[in-house]
Amino acid sequence: MAKSKFEYVRTFEKEDRCLQNCWIVVRVDGKAFHKFSEMHEFEKPNDVRGLKLMTRSAANVMCEFRDIVIAFGHSDEYSFVFRKDTSLFNRRGEKLMSLVSSLFSSSYVFFWNDYFTQKKLLYAPSFDARIVLYPTDDNLRDYMSWRQADVHVNNLYNTCFWSLVNKGGLTNSEAEKTLRGTLASQKNEILFQEFKINYNNEPEMYRKGTTLIRKLMKFPNENESRLVICPYYGDIIKNKFWEENTEILSMKSAPTELYTEHIEFYEGKNKISLCK
Amino acid sequence: MAKSKFEYVRTFEKEDRCLQNCWIVVRVDGKAFHKFSEMHEFEKPNDVRGLKLMTRSAANVMCEFRDIVIAFGHSDEYSFVFRKDTSLFNRRGEKLMSLVSSLFSSSYVFFWNDYFTQKKLLYAPSFDARIVLYPTDDNLRDYMSWRQADVHVNNLYNTCFWSLVNKGGLTNSEAEKTLRGTLASQKNEILFQEFKINYNNEPEMYRKGTTLIRKLMKFPNENESRLVICPYYGDIIKNKFWEENTEILSMKSAPTELYTEHIEFYEGKNKISLCK
Amino acid sequence: MAKSKFEYVRTFEKEDRCLQNCWIVVRVDGKAFHKFSEMHEFEKPNDVRGLKLMTRSAANVMCEFRDIVIAFGHSDEYSFVFRKDTSLFNRRGEKLMSLVSSLFSSSYVFFWNDYFTQKKLLYAPSFDARIVLYPTDDNLRDYMSWRQADVHVNNLYNTCFWSLVNKGGLTNSEAEKTLRGTLASQKNEILFQEFKINYNNEPEMYRKGTTLIRKLMKFPNENESRLVICPYYGDIIKNKFWEENTEILSMKSAPTELYTEHIEFYEGKNKISLCK
Amino acid sequence: MAKSKFEYVRTFEKEDRCLQNCWIVVRVDGKAFHKFSEMHEFEKPNDVRGLKLMTRSAANVMCEFRDIVIAFGHSDEYSFVFRKDTSLFNRRGEKLMSLVSSLFSSSYVFFWNDYFTQKKLLYAPSFDARIVLYPTDDNLRDYMSWRQADVHVNNLYNTCFWSLVNKGGLTNSEAEKTLRGTLASQKNEILFQEFKINYNNEPEMYRKGTTLIRKLMKFPNENESRLVICPYYGDIIKNKFWEENTEILSMKSAPTELYTEHIEFYEGKNKISLCK
Repeated sequence: MAKSKFEYVRTFEKEDRCLQNCWIVVRVDGKAFHKFSEMHEFEKPNDVRGLKLMTRSAANVMCEFRDIVIAFGHSDEYSFVFRKDTSLFNRRGEKLMSLVSSLFSSSYVFFWNDYFTQKKLLYAPSFDARIVLYPTDDNLRDYMSWRQADVHVNNLYNTCFWSLVNKGGLTNSEAEKTLRGTLASQKNEILFQEFKINYNNEPEMYRKGTTLIRKLMKFPNENESRLVICPYYGDIIKNKFWEENTEILSMKSAPTELYTEHIEFYEGKNKISLCK
Repeated sequence: MAKSKFEYVRTFEKEDRCLQNCWIVVRVDGKAFHKFSEMHEFEKPNDVRGLKLMTRSAANVMCEFRDIVIAFGHSDEYSFVFRKDTSLFNRRGEKLMSLVSSLFSSSYVFFWNDYFTQKKLLYAPSFDARIVLYPTDDNLRDYMSWRQADVHVNNLYNTCFWSLVNKGGLTNSEAEKTLRGTLASQKNEILFQEFKINYNNEPEMYRKGTTLIRKLMKFPNENESRLVICPYYGDIIKNKFWEENTEILSMKSAPTELYTEHIEFYEGKNKISLCK
Repeated sequence: MAKSKFEYVRTFEKEDRCLQNCWIVVRVDGKAFHKFSEMHEFEKPNDVRGLKLMTRSAANVMCEFRDIVIAFGHSDEYSFVFRKDTSLFNRRGEKLMSLVSSLFSSSYVFFWNDYFTQKKLLYAPSFDARIVLYPTDDNLRDYMSWRQADVHVNNLYNTCFWSLVNKGGLTNSEAEKTLRGTLASQKNEILFQEFKINYNNEPEMYRKGTTLIRKLMKFPNENESRLVICPYYGDIIKNKFWEENTEILSMKSAPTELYTEHIEFYEGKNKISLCK
Repeated sequence: MAKSKFEYVRTFEKEDRCLQNCWIVVRVDGKAFHKFSEMHEFEKPNDVRGLKLMTRSAANVMCEFRDIVIAFGHSDEYSFVFRKDTSLFNRRGEKLMSLVSSLFSSSYVFFWNDYFTQKKLLYAPSFDARIVLYPTDDNLRDYMSWRQADVHVNNLYNTCFWSLVNKGGLTNSEAEKTLRGTLASQKNEILFQEFKINYNNEPEMYRKGTTLIRKLMKFPNENESRLVICPYYGDIIKNKFWEENTEILSMKSAPTELYTEHIEFYEGKNKISLCK
C-alpha cells in the first residue's frame, strides 16, 4: 500500500521527554495583547472581566489536567505547574505544552461571552507557551515568586501610568516620561499625593495576581467533601502560603476518588461547574 | 528590588531553535475527538461542517503566519509547513508549535457558529501539536504524501464502516469484524455490491483531504491581483500538483507587498475576509 | 574576505546547556573491550593492572576537572559526577562529555606502560561517553548504588564463570550453561563447594569497584593539609559512606586555595603526582 | 535483587538521535594547545611532526568509522563528516561525538613516538568535540570551505607573526602590534619585503590544511585495487575538487567488500597499515 512507502518520515520526529523528578512549568502568554486589549476596549490598568476570563480559562485547563497542582496568572499570562512525578503523556514536552496552550486558548474564546457580556469578540486571540523544568521545590517557589514579584512591579507602574493619563490628563508619552527611573516609593507617593490612592488598598487580585489551587471543601447539603479549584489573591512569596497548603508540593498523586463526578471552580460564594 | 533575587529562574529555560535550512512542519491533532464528534452529533463518516471549520481555522493560521507555504488537513488533524528559511521567532520550536496550536484552537471555537449553525458548542476542544523537521524537498513531499495516503486508507475504511452501520444495520462491532483484515479492493467491492457506492465518486474533499495554498488571483472590479489562500481537494502525491505550483517549494520569502491590506480565503465563488 | 561568506554555517550549531541545579554524570564505557582484553591477555575475571590503569586515568580526569566531586568505576567503565552548581564550560553537555571521554582515553594510553610493564599496547582503545542529569541527591545516590550493585552482580558471575573454566576445566559454553538462571546464593555455593572460594573474602576492589573522592590529608614533613584524590573500595550504597563524607554532596564550590601547587593521587602508602 | 530497585535511574537518560538525512559533522579541537605546543617545543608557525600526528590520528578514526566520507584538519582541530544516511549507533549524537573524540585522543598519544621521536610526551592531551548537522550538500561544502578559509587566515597571520619574531627579532607583543588591523595583502607584502617569503610558495599542507579522503588505489604486485585513506593538500573550496571526487557526496554506503583485510593510509610513496 502507498502508505508504507512514505511512512519513513515518522522517523524524523524527535522524542522530547522532560527530565524525570523535576517540576514541569508551562507558561502561556498572550500574543500581541496590547493591540487585543485596545481593540476590545479593556479598562486600564486592570480589566476585571479580562482577568476573570483568564482565570476561568486556567481553571478549565486545571480541570482537564489533574496533575497540575497550582497555577498562577496575571495580565495576559498564566503559569501551570505539573507535579514532579507526573507521567502524563509520558512527560513529552510537546504534548504538555501544546495541549495547555490549545485548551487555554479555546477556553478563552468559549467563555468570552460569560465575562464580556456587552462586547463581541472581534477575532481569535492566541497564546504562546513555553516549558521549563525546575529540579527542586525551592527552584519552583522562586519561579512562583518571580512571577508574583513581576505582578507587583508591573501593576504599580500601570496604576501610576493610567492615573496620570486618565485622571491627570497627561498624554501617554508624558506619563511615561514622568515615571521613567522612579523608584517604587516614588510611584506610591505620586499615587497618594496626586490621586489620593493608597496603593496597598488596591484590590489584591490586581496587586498579587491570581493563584489557583485545589482545596477539599465541604458544601452545604452535601455529605462528602469535594476537591474544587479555588482562586487565591494573597502572597505566595512568603512561607505562610506554602505552610498552610503543604499538599501543593507534597501531593504525590491526585486522589482521583475525590473527583467522582466533575470538578468545580469555586469563586467566593459561587460554584461554577467546569467539566463536561 | 525583590524581582532580581528570583530572576535567576529564567536561566532554567532552554533554547530550542530548529535546525537551519530545514522545512518545519507543525501538525495539530484533535484530542479525544471521537468523544467530541459524538457529543456534537457529527455526521458519519464525514461531517462537511466539521471539515470546513477545520479548514477555516487552518486558513486563519496561514493568514497570521505568512511563512506557512502550504497546509494539509483531514479529519481532526492539520499540518502546517513553514518555509525552509523562515526566521520567524528566530526558529524557536516552542513558539512556532504553541502559537499554531493556540490560534488553530481559538479559531475553531471562534468560527464554530458559522458552520454549526444549529448546534451549540458544548465545551472547549483542544488540539495537541508536534513539530518535525525535513531537510529536503523530497522528504517534505513524502511527508505530505504520507498524510494524504492516510486520508485514503482511513476514509475508505470509514465509508465502509458507516455504510455497514447506517445502511446495513450492523452494530459497530459487527461492522468492525466484517472489515477486519480486508484489502482496499475488498472494501471497494463491499461498497459497490452492497450499497451501490462507487468510492471514486465520493467527494474529493473526503477522499483526498484539503490542501491550502496561496495563489495570486485576479478579482473582478479590482485592478491588481492579490494573494489569497485557496483550498484544493486533489492529489498532492503525484508530480503534477508540484509542477503546477512550483512556487510552494521555491518561494524564498513571502512577497509582502502583495498583502497590502489583508488576506482572503477563497473557496469556490466566495471570498471570505480573514484578517483583522 | 572569503571567510565571512561561509561563516553562516556556525548558526547550525546547537546549544546544549545542562539544566541548572542538577548533578551532571558523565559515564565512559570501553568500546569492544571484550576483544581488547583478549588481545592484551587480561587476567580473568579481574586484571588488577587493567583496573588500576582505569583508576589512574580517572584520577587524571578528576585532577583536570575540579568540579568532579566523586567518580566510580569497575571493569571498563567509569562514572564522573560534576557538582550541581558547576558552571564549567557554561554547563555545555558536549564540552563536558567529550573532554571527559577524550582525557580519559588519552590518559589510558599515556599511563599504559606504568601498569602493563610486560605488555605492549597493540592499538589505541576508545571509550564512549554519555551524560545524564540527576535533580536530587537521592537520585544521584541511587545512580551510584545502581553502578555498585552492577559490579556485584557482574563480578559474582564472572568469578564463578572463570573458576568453572580455569579451575573446573569447563568450556566457556559449558560454564555459561551451568550458570544460566542461577541465583546469587547458588553462585556463592558453587564457589564455596567446588573451589573453596568464600566470595566475601575476594578483594573489595573486585567486589565493590573503585570510588574516587577528594580528601584533605596531612602528610609527614608538610605543615599544611592538602587535597588528594583517594581510592576507596568499600560500600557506597549504605548511608555510612555518605555520612562520613558529607562534603561530597554538600561542597558548594571547590576550595581552590587547597590546590596551591598540584594535586596528588594517594593510593595506600604511595603518593603519585598527577598534574603538570 | 538490589539492582532492580536502583535501575529506574536509567530513565533519566536522554535519547539524542541526529535528524535523519543530514550530514553529521564532528569536529575535535585541542584543549589548551597553546600551552601544550609550548611545553613540547613545537616549531612555529607550523610543526610538521604535530600536523602529521594529527592526520595520523584522524586516519585512525576514519579507519574505525567507515561511514566517515571525508575529514579535514589543520592546527589542533579536525572535522569528520559522517554520510547523510549513516545509521551508525542509530545516529545517537553522544555516541558518535564521544567515540570520535576518544579515539582521536588515544590515537594521538599512541602514535606520538612515531612522529616526535626525540621528544617525550609530558602529559595526556585532550580534545573537545562538537556535533553539527548540515541538511544539504551545499551547506556541507560551505562548512568545509569555512574551515579551509580559516586555515588561510590563521596561517598567513602566523607565518607573518613568527617571521617577525624569529627572523625580525620582535617581541611577541611588538609583532602583534605590527600586524593589528593589517589586510591579507599587507601581510603578503611584509613577508615578501622583509623576509623574501612568497607566501604562495609555502607548503600547501600549511596553507590549505589536510583533507583525508578514501580512494580506490592499485598497488604494485597486487591484483586488486583497494580502498586507502589518502591525504590531499589542495583547495576544497572550488568546484574542481568535488567534481573530481564525486563519490564523496554521492556514496550511499561504504563498499565493505573493498575492505577485505584492513585499510591503509597512503601518504606519498608510503603505505602505513592502520587497522588491527
